[in-house]
Amino acid sequence: MKFTTYLRQGAPRLALVDAQDLIDLNDADALVPADLRAALSAGVDLQAAARQALRSGQRQPLEGARLAPLVPEPGKIVCLGLNYYDHAKEGGREKPDYPWFFFRAPSSLLAHGEAGWLPKVSTRFDYEAELAVVIGRKVPRHTPQAQALAYVFGYSCFNDMSVRDYQKRTPQWTIGKNFDRTGGFGPVLVTADELAPGAAGLRIQSRLNGQVMQDANTDDMIFSVAETIALLAQVLTLEPGDVIVMGTPAGVGQARTPPVWMRAGDTIEIEIDGVGLLSNPIADEAA
Amino acid sequence: MKFTTYLRQGAPRLALVDAQDLIDLNDADALVPADLRAALSAGVDLQAAARQALRSGQRQPLEGARLAPLVPEPGKIVCLGLNYYDHAKEGGREKPDYPWFFFRAPSSLLAHGEAGWLPKVSTRFDYEAELAVVIGRKVPRHTPQAQALAYVFGYSCFNDMSVRDYQKRTPQWTIGKNFDRTGGFGPVLVTADELAPGAAGLRIQSRLNGQVMQDANTDDMIFSVAETIALLAQVLTLEPGDVIVMGTPAGVGQARTPPVWMRAGDTIEIEIDGVGLLSNPIADEAA
Repeated sequence: MKFTTYLRQGAPRLALVDAQDLIDLNDADALVPADLRAALSAGVDLQAAARQALRSGQRQPLEGARLAPLVPEPGKIVCLGLNYYDHAKEGGREKPDYPWFFFRAPSSLLAHGEAGWLPKVSTRFDYEAELAVVIGRKVPRHTPQAQALAYVFGYSCFNDMSVRDYQKRTPQWTIGKNFDRTGGFGPVLVTADELAPGAAGLRIQSRLNGQVMQDANTDDMIFSVAETIALLAQVLTLEPGDVIVMGTPAGVGQARTPPVWMRAGDTIEIEIDGVGLLSNPIADEAA
Repeated sequence: MKFTTYLRQGAPRLALVDAQDLIDLNDADALVPADLRAALSAGVDLQAAARQALRSGQRQPLEGARLAPLVPEPGKIVCLGLNYYDHAKEGGREKPDYPWFFFRAPSSLLAHGEAGWLPKVSTRFDYEAELAVVIGRKVPRHTPQAQALAYVFGYSCFNDMSVRDYQKRTPQWTIGKNFDRTGGFGPVLVTADELAPGAAGLRIQSRLNGQVMQDANTDDMIFSVAETIALLAQVLTLEPGDVIVMGTPAGVGQARTPPVWMRAGDTIEIEIDGVGLLSNPIADEAA
C-alpha cells in the first residue's frame, strides 16, 4: 500500500494513495489520527484502516494535491554519511566500519513539488539521492539485526540536499545538512511488505534537469537497513515516525570536475524503483 | 520568573516556580497549554499568565514533584562543541572560527533527578556542564546579532553527557551524544529578564559526587548566545521551544590523567549561578 501526507487548509493530513486518487484516512475513520506519526504512535493498524478506506472512503485526485513532507514532524531524522562504497571513494574516504551518523531537524524538511531553497549565504548547493526508512513501532533497545526489519513501516525517497561549504566549515557536517527547505521527503511511502526485505535491490537515481547524475542500487549500501537499525538500537530508542536516511551513492555535484551546483530554476529528481519519484524545483531562498 | 515542567500522571505539565512551590499554569488558566513548547508556539504571554497564577493559582510543594525534561519535545536541540577556549585546548583543538554544531534528539533528554544511563555498550561515560537557551519566539532568518537576544525566553542547565568512544567512532560526534537518558535538562528555566544579556558573567560548575570537576564562567564562551543565534539564523529557522546548548568548559573526565568516567551510583551535578542546580544519579541502563 502507498500512503502520503497532503495539506488541507495548511494542515498535514495522512492519506492512502490508490491509483490516481487520495483517500483521507481521518475522514474515512475519525479514530485514525490525521498525522502519520500520531497514527503510528497510537498503534493504529494503518493497513486495516486503508482497506476500509478503499471500500468506503471519499476519493480526490492526487494530481493537484499539495503535499507535505511525508512525516512532517519526526522525533528523529537519523542520516548516514558515506554509505555507498563508490561515494565514499569519490570523496577520498575509506570504507567506514561504523556509520557516519548525523541528524536532521524537522525544520529542514521539504515536500515533493515544493521549492528547495538555494541559500543566500552559499552557492555550493548539492543533491543526494537517498532511501528513507520510516519506523512503524518502537524498536526495543538492543534489538538484533535479524529482528530489526519487523519495526519498519515503509520506505520513501529522500533528497539530502547539502550546503557543502557549511558542511565542511568544521568536522561536524550537521549544519550543512540543516538549512531550511533542503530535505526533500516523499512523495509517497510504500509499505515494507511491497518491497524486498530492507528495500534491497532497488535502482536509485538522481536527475538534474533530466540528466542522470547518480545511478546505483540499494544493494550497494555498506550498512543495510537491518544492520543500521540494530546499530542504532544499541544507542537509542527508535520511535514510531522516526526516519532513517540511508546515505547516497556516487555522482554528487561536489565530486565532479568541474563541480556541479544546483541553481535557481533547476529541477532535481530522486527516483527509487518501486518506491517513487521525488521532484523539487530549486529557487532562491525566500524569508 | 522561574518555570519548570513536572509530571502529573505521566504527562508533562508546565508550572511556575515560586519560592518552594509549583503552580500549574494550565490549571490556573485553561487557555494556557500544559506544554512549554506548545505555550510558546501559541504566543501565550507566559509572564502575564504567571502573574495571574501567582494571585489565584493553587500551590503544591516543589519538593517531591517528579520533573520532566524542561522542554520535553523540542523541535531542535542544537549543541555547540568546543565553545570554551580552555576545553578546546584540553582536547588538543584550536580555537574554532565557526561553532562545531551537532544535534541531540528529544529521545536523549533526561529530567532533573532522573537517572542518567550508563550504556551497556560503553564505560566511557562523561559529563559536560552547559548553559541551555530556550527560544521563545520564531527567529526571523538573518536576524542580526544585535537583535538576537530578543527571541530568547530563558535559560536553564544542561548536562551534555557523552559516550566518548561512540562520539569518536567516526568524525561525526552525533551518535555519542544521543544515547537514551543522557541529556540532563532543568530543573528550572529562568526568564531572560532576570539575568545579564546572554546569561553572561555566570559561574558554571560540574561536581561529581560533590567534587568540583568543571569551574568556569559563561563569559569564557567563544561564541556568545547572541552570536550563536545570529549564525544559526543564516541557516535555519529557530522556533519556539527550540533549545541551544552552549558547550562546555575544561575539566571533562576524558581530558583528565587518568581519565574519570561516571559509574553507576555516582551523582553528577551541574550548577549555574542564578540559573539552577541540575542533579542526576547515574545508573546502569535499563531497557
